[in-house]
Amino acid sequence: MKPLGQHYLLECDGVEPSLLANPEQLEQILRQAAQQAQAHIVFAHLHHFGEGQGVTGVLVLQESHITIHTWPEYAYAALDVFMCGQAQPQLAVAYLIEQLQPQQHRWQMIERQSLNM
Amino acid sequence: MKPLGQHYLLECDGVEPSLLANPEQLEQILRQAAQQAQAHIVFAHLHHFGEGQGVTGVLVLQESHITIHTWPEYAYAALDVFMCGQAQPQLAVAYLIEQLQPQQHRWQMIERQSLNM
Repeated sequence: MKPLGQHYLLECDGVEPSLLANPEQLEQILRQAAQQAQAHIVFAHLHHFGEGQGVTGVLVLQESHITIHTWPEYAYAALDVFMCGQAQPQLAVAYLIEQLQPQQHRWQMIERQSLNM
Repeated sequence: MKPLGQHYLLECDGVEPSLLANPEQLEQILRQAAQQAQAHIVFAHLHHFGEGQGVTGVLVLQESHITIHTWPEYAYAALDVFMCGQAQPQLAVAYLIEQLQPQQHRWQMIERQSLNM
């Protein structure tokens, strides 16, 4: 079976809390991550829960999605990079780590696929 | 460590292709799935690639997200249900399976968490 897409689940700990509470800056980082991977953005929406609080949001891509959910109180962000086709999700993951500068991070990659391909 | 959230990755094979190419019906199913889990919808966006083609979309939730990506040509959908807090993502997953009626499905659940909780 050929995988239809690669889905990276990325946990970042020890990220600067002020960045995790800044939806504009996070949207820029996500957009650049998509560009690094040569993915195409269909739609972006980041929601800020309020001053100093977390952000939750998504880039819907032609190739699937990037999502982010942040908890400034734990200096923690959970990200997903799921891409199909010719995009290179590992480049987006590397860019996200470079920009978020977590003290610790870990990721796993899960192949998403149909049984009938 | 207490998990911050539970992230279900659900693969559905053998779904009726006309359903997988119907963004309005899929949005209703996703919204109902969020409701079943007692999650709160912040924003919804489903993108349709064109007549008879796939749909890619997201429900941004206060508790994280539900996403769907469909390939009618493979009768296949890849879904994510990621929820934190008091929501019950397993109820959303059960509802999605009930509504999509895949001939085959499989899921895995991954705990998303900070190292510093």
